[in-house]
Amino acid sequence: MTSRARSLWGWGYEDAIPTGDARAMLGAQVSAVLGIPEPVAEAPARLDAITIPPPRITPPAALASLFTDARADRAAHTYGKSYRDIYRAFHGDFAAAPDLVAYPQTEGDVAAILAHCEHTKTVLVPFGGGSSVVGGVEAVAPPGYAGVISLDLRALDKVLEVDAVSRSARVQAGVFGPHLEAQLAAHGDGAFSLRHFPQSFEFSTLGGWIATRAGGHFATLYTHIDDLVQSTRTVTGVGIFESRRLPASGAGPSPDRMILGSEGAYGVITEAWVRVQARPTFRASASVHFASFEDAVAATRAVAQAGLYPANCRLLDGREAMINGVTFDGSSVVLLGFESADHPLEPWMERAVALCLDAGGASPKPPVYKRDGARARDEATATSWREAFLRGPYLQSALITLGLVVDTFETACPWACFAALHAAVTEAAMGTMTRVAGTGLLSCRFTHVYPDGPAPYYTFIMPGRRGDELSQWEAVKAAVSEALFANGATITHHHAVGRLHRPWYDRQRPDVFASAMVAAKRALDPSWVLNPGVLIDRG
Amino acid sequence: MTSRARSLWGWGYEDAIPTGDARAMLGAQVSAVLGIPEPVAEAPARLDAITIPPPRITPPAALASLFTDARADRAAHTYGKSYRDIYRAFHGDFAAAPDLVAYPQTEGDVAAILAHCEHTKTVLVPFGGGSSVVGGVEAVAPPGYAGVISLDLRALDKVLEVDAVSRSARVQAGVFGPHLEAQLAAHGDGAFSLRHFPQSFEFSTLGGWIATRAGGHFATLYTHIDDLVQSTRTVTGVGIFESRRLPASGAGPSPDRMILGSEGAYGVITEAWVRVQARPTFRASASVHFASFEDAVAATRAVAQAGLYPANCRLLDGREAMINGVTFDGSSVVLLGFESADHPLEPWMERAVALCLDAGGASPKPPVYKRDGARARDEATATSWREAFLRGPYLQSALITLGLVVDTFETACPWACFAALHAAVTEAAMGTMTRVAGTGLLSCRFTHVYPDGPAPYYTFIMPGRRGDELSQWEAVKAAVSEALFANGATITHHHAVGRLHRPWYDRQRPDVFASAMVAAKRALDPSWVLNPGVLIDRG
Repeated sequence: MTSRARSLWGWGYEDAIPTGDARAMLGAQVSAVLGIPEPVAEAPARLDAITIPPPRITPPAALASLFTDARADRAAHTYGKSYRDIYRAFHGDFAAAPDLVAYPQTEGDVAAILAHCEHTKTVLVPFGGGSSVVGGVEAVAPPGYAGVISLDLRALDKVLEVDAVSRSARVQAGVFGPHLEAQLAAHGDGAFSLRHFPQSFEFSTLGGWIATRAGGHFATLYTHIDDLVQSTRTVTGVGIFESRRLPASGAGPSPDRMILGSEGAYGVITEAWVRVQARPTFRASASVHFASFEDAVAATRAVAQAGLYPANCRLLDGREAMINGVTFDGSSVVLLGFESADHPLEPWMERAVALCLDAGGASPKPPVYKRDGARARDEATATSWREAFLRGPYLQSALITLGLVVDTFETACPWACFAALHAAVTEAAMGTMTRVAGTGLLSCRFTHVYPDGPAPYYTFIMPGRRGDELSQWEAVKAAVSEALFANGATITHHHAVGRLHRPWYDRQRPDVFASAMVAAKRALDPSWVLNPGVLIDRG
Repeated sequence: MTSRARSLWGWGYEDAIPTGDARAMLGAQVSAVLGIPEPVAEAPARLDAITIPPPRITPPAALASLFTDARADRAAHTYGKSYRDIYRAFHGDFAAAPDLVAYPQTEGDVAAILAHCEHTKTVLVPFGGGSSVVGGVEAVAPPGYAGVISLDLRALDKVLEVDAVSRSARVQAGVFGPHLEAQLAAHGDGAFSLRHFPQSFEFSTLGGWIATRAGGHFATLYTHIDDLVQSTRTVTGVGIFESRRLPASGAGPSPDRMILGSEGAYGVITEAWVRVQARPTFRASASVHFASFEDAVAATRAVAQAGLYPANCRLLDGREAMINGVTFDGSSVVLLGFESADHPLEPWMERAVALCLDAGGASPKPPVYKRDGARARDEATATSWREAFLRGPYLQSALITLGLVVDTFETACPWACFAALHAAVTEAAMGTMTRVAGTGLLSCRFTHVYPDGPAPYYTFIMPGRRGDELSQWEAVKAAVSEALFANGATITHHHAVGRLHRPWYDRQRPDVFASAMVAAKRALDPSWVLNPGVLIDRG
């Protein structure tokens, strides 16, 4: 692999964040939509100009070769990629840098490093790919701790075993999405795929997906990595926690479900058996337009409740449809997709389209059916879809350099709650943006749909007041989070809790469950050094 | 509802257990198959003739009206319905009877009774419907406990709320299957169904299903009650544990997944929001015959991995097919079924049948497609299917009266492990039965299939040596459980752990997870009175 430079502050690869004319055009578009002057770009802080506090700790001698205190490594492991992270990094604030970064080469290294941390009361933050948008990897040492070590598992990046008969693979947790897919595709007994494509796909790891219950490719059925995990292997402060590899079990509460969503608080995930699939050879896609947003919502509900299980059932409201160049008259759009490695998809797609038309939609073009004769062609199709999807976060980074405050948030709720939720979220976001920024834009899509409710995903953007952007952003984030909480929705469907969502998570989560989690964490992490600050407090 | 008498010792209704000619015919069939003399029926113990120890405790005065120490109630709450339970009850051994039975009328009553137990260190066993086949409700008071109370939630049996838009219902945990379905069917906004039909359907409750991760109707996708639970509400020793009602969430580890499978160890489930569905109006069924069992296995694997999601994909080996009157030449059979409330099922069924034919099957008749114009007809179809399925446990009770040792066990494993597992289970069962009983019969079916593995379900039967049946049964149970453990399978796919599966569960479950569970139980059940003996020990 080429080692393309990662941005010090923004999303992904440095050279993929739009600059120059591309950025200027983005700025012009936003200025036109918001009715504000064309924003002017600022330059990001440079690594050689930022201040990073000296490390408070030194590595244990026996493990010294696994550690570094180099500026570049510490800076790269300071934040995730939330708006707040990108903003602070862009402006050169690296005060929260971890003291050390550790790169274990084996699971034994992970265990040794964790033992060292338990012994010396040093915070250990599993970094995953560092794409957290919720403050999940921001390394803060509470009083009484020696310091902070950020743990980067990138060396544990192999597909160790593929069971082609059972369609499953044993994979190390540090592998990034593309490298995982490449290894699965190259397997001798069949070209498999995990088909888990979160928007962070290129910059997130299997371990991170499991720790955060990441949401992926499928709009229905296998929506979260949870559904693709057969077993997990985790290093805890009291030993290895490894579940049996099974297609399903009824033997007590699921051990894996304790690890899924644990956000590094219980241990460091080092391996998992995951469910892989044959690469699709049949694909069907269609889009249906709706004059009314409510009708489009009803259509996605009808499809979600019909037992058709589309791979894609994405609703775009008028603004999202415009931003994505699909419609320009305010119409909402429902994008439908089916995929199969086994059978033609006409009956599935025809029924889904019919349900959308029944709900008041119009289908300007007939569905497109593709049957890939060769893998190469299949790959190309997947790649073009993927590229558009994966570009989103780069645009956010570019807009932030223009002084705009732009972020996303996402949730899920029962269908019956959605209308009131959407109204409340819209009022909270628009009201707050108007108050703190004079104007703003909010758009909505559905990323996933369930028989009992949708997963709405919102994007907001407003002009920043130079130097005051974080408080503007915080005001909106708090207002919309309150709206989510008050209207029966979850604080996160697939972005995780981290530190940003804690206040609302704490109210959403049963108190008794928190007591159980605290007790479990004490048992598994006796010195309470594993990513303190996420999910629960020591109490 | 009529109050049809429940059997004191056997499955279900007293008058539904075959006696007389029906039983004699069963006995003759078994004697022919096993090559043993025709077995002779014994008479069960009568309630007025059994010995039940006097209660060691009295109810708290303030709650006295909720309690009884009547012989009939205590006897009826002594056991579940495992072979061991039925055998002991049949022979009048009720030494393990709980001291008292409590019938709370409200959730507040449940909380008060649990508080009393925590305070007085009295064992509290949530009884559910009492259909446990794993010793899950057998009330044993370890040393240091005052006594045992069996908790029966039958009064909490209402569907409290139906959200027709979100296809979900809030239901009290004490409701039995038929009463739940009747209430859902009668709902004004649409005739809904939970479509969760475990074999215990008539005699098990929603709370019991959740506590044991019961397996239901669907052979694929929604196989366990886990998948149908939107949120749970549980009374613990430190307060109410209630999760938010959501279609999906990524906010930390799932609280519901801590309750699902908890077997009464963490608290008493009092309510849940469950996902309901429209009653199917389209049905398709087909059967495919296979000369080779291995080919039939391969066929179910192909169907499970094709993304077709049949409601039924049941493999019967030659013995099961014969017992069920489907084939008589040793052929294996795959039964396929699809159901939908939305669309005709021809494309789904045709592809599934084609996959089975590709795997070497023969389809003697074309698939049958039914479209129900009226609900009444749909109900009739469902009822006939259900009746045959629900009769199974009655036959076991009848055979036990004939002195036969007959039981079932079930599991799940990756596809790649199945051949070796099946050989090992067969050897263990046949070898042990031959050793302890001179002969025996083992049959196998698949109840559920997953992309990554099947859920095999075994039935064994052998002649009992009068007075020695329990040790014969224990020898087989231990041998097959060892075979499951040694071959990568789970000790249970949907029968739960209870007390019978503990030795193998303890080895299968990660030790670190056990530590976490012990810590969590201490937090939620400070006096360790909730169903002690299941899942974990106090340590």
